[in-house]
Amino acid sequence: MKNRITKLLSIKYPIIQAGMIWCSDWNLASAVSNAGGLGIIGSGSMYPDVLKENIINCKNATNQPFAVNIPLLYPNVEEHIKSIIDLKVPIVFTSAGNPNTWTKELKSKNIKVIHVVSSVKFALKAQSSGVDAVVAEGFEAGGHNGREETTSLCLIPDIAKEINIPLIAAGGIVDGRSMLAAMILGADAVQMGTRFVASKESSAHKNFKNIVLKAKDGDTKLTLKEITPVRMMKNKFYQEISDFYENNPTKEQLLKKLGRARAKLGMFEGDLDEGELEIGQASSQINEYFKCCDIVNQIMDEFISLKSKISFDDKFNF
Amino acid sequence: MKNRITKLLSIKYPIIQAGMIWCSDWNLASAVSNAGGLGIIGSGSMYPDVLKENIINCKNATNQPFAVNIPLLYPNVEEHIKSIIDLKVPIVFTSAGNPNTWTKELKSKNIKVIHVVSSVKFALKAQSSGVDAVVAEGFEAGGHNGREETTSLCLIPDIAKEINIPLIAAGGIVDGRSMLAAMILGADAVQMGTRFVASKESSAHKNFKNIVLKAKDGDTKLTLKEITPVRMMKNKFYQEISDFYENNPTKEQLLKKLGRARAKLGMFEGDLDEGELEIGQASSQINEYFKCCDIVNQIMDEFISLKSKISFDDKFNF
Repeated sequence: MKNRITKLLSIKYPIIQAGMIWCSDWNLASAVSNAGGLGIIGSGSMYPDVLKENIINCKNATNQPFAVNIPLLYPNVEEHIKSIIDLKVPIVFTSAGNPNTWTKELKSKNIKVIHVVSSVKFALKAQSSGVDAVVAEGFEAGGHNGREETTSLCLIPDIAKEINIPLIAAGGIVDGRSMLAAMILGADAVQMGTRFVASKESSAHKNFKNIVLKAKDGDTKLTLKEITPVRMMKNKFYQEISDFYENNPTKEQLLKKLGRARAKLGMFEGDLDEGELEIGQASSQINEYFKCCDIVNQIMDEFISLKSKISFDDKFNF
Repeated sequence: MKNRITKLLSIKYPIIQAGMIWCSDWNLASAVSNAGGLGIIGSGSMYPDVLKENIINCKNATNQPFAVNIPLLYPNVEEHIKSIIDLKVPIVFTSAGNPNTWTKELKSKNIKVIHVVSSVKFALKAQSSGVDAVVAEGFEAGGHNGREETTSLCLIPDIAKEINIPLIAAGGIVDGRSMLAAMILGADAVQMGTRFVASKESSAHKNFKNIVLKAKDGDTKLTLKEITPVRMMKNKFYQEISDFYENNPTKEQLLKKLGRARAKLGMFEGDLDEGELEIGQASSQINEYFKCCDIVNQIMDEFISLKSKISFDDKFNF
């Protein structure tokens, strides 16, 4: 079961849980790491003290590697980096910012650094900055997303052929089937966010989890492209944003409309009407939620069974 | 090599060339059919007499099955359907319209009918209308596209699990690698447009073919969503449309700006600045153009070699 990513990160399976605001605290991260994948604490919704507490709790809950995700444009980056170094977190995923800013500092402390990108240009920039691997995030992913709108099916091979470091695919990957497809396209591992939102251990509000299970194709949309493109469920708040666009709003008006703490309101507090519900297109494929260890086992069983079926099927009916 | 689609269409390989305006006349269609795939004449840019001539020429150039694509909202549909029946075309691909309108009539003449969809809802509607198979077209596809923006990675499994008839995947598929990925996700066959634009036999202007070979990730965009969403290259014309949006144009103003015959101007006449250049995201992966028989052979060689490699690779390095 060893490949470049499982070796790099010292994990059993090439399955990584995405760091997500309001959904991925120490409880989720440690559950995924204990299941043989890599769990990530999403620091984007955490004050410095909260992140510290989460790191300490995560260390107590697992003796396996875990990571912290840091959106580099968030206000508390410096304090977050200090906690990560002080508390000896082994792996950091950086996103939404310049990989040159912190990579050297983190690597000098023996921390593995992985950067999230949405284009070949940014993948090459991340590689040059010295990161250990990149996450290629396609258009179908939930939450914040790139401006190029390149889908995973195109982005994975586009990036795989240009870089030498390992590649983790994210966006639209939800089970063993899509995991195998992503790896055939050139990924060394997969990162799943939406799938782990709908897990027992995620800190998402139960209202949010329940609506994820009911989602159908076409129920999410990438919007707010003038601020930061973000994929969310088409709820009442999305419809208000959509109607607001009819009046050709300025960026300032959009920011005012968005207001503060919309994501917390929706994902953590469970207000399905007024909250921002960040989730990926693959939510259409999730109908039940399980414990993380069951999710990881299901994915690996499906991956391995599908893989062995391919070799014996001469009729191309996978 | 037999599966549901190769049996249904009596073709050797589950590779279908998309019917594309200004790029796919009888010369391209017959070349793909002679290579063992299914060639399609794109009737959307043809007057009734031109389509008739194309069907007759295609029949003279190949004794293999071929198809005609009909966008059902185009003005000449009735005359096109009459020619197809009179000249005994064996297969029709319908798109952009209601599959109930013509399916029964065509089926009563022993013609196979396949309908293009972009959502589960429309796939079920097509299945109810009695079509033999559906094409699931993802967000990354070139040209006209659905409003749901669901990518192939999500759309293929979404539709595969809901329908009983065969499924052809389109959008982002360009080689044996993406073909295998699409089939693992649940497709019985693949349809490629962009890959065959960049073929020796396509009727695309050489300027257009050359710019497709140079395309990088992020060079296309889905736009004109208020009229009919269409993915095109980000050339001077695209930039003008994009700037035009700053003034919050009405649908009528957009239609006026678009004008007439933009696609012909760009794709057939080779005006790379003022023309509309419809092409998919996968253009980033094409760097050379070949004859159709070489394209089909390359795809199948890659597909088969990758498939056999998977069965022996215990390290997941495909």
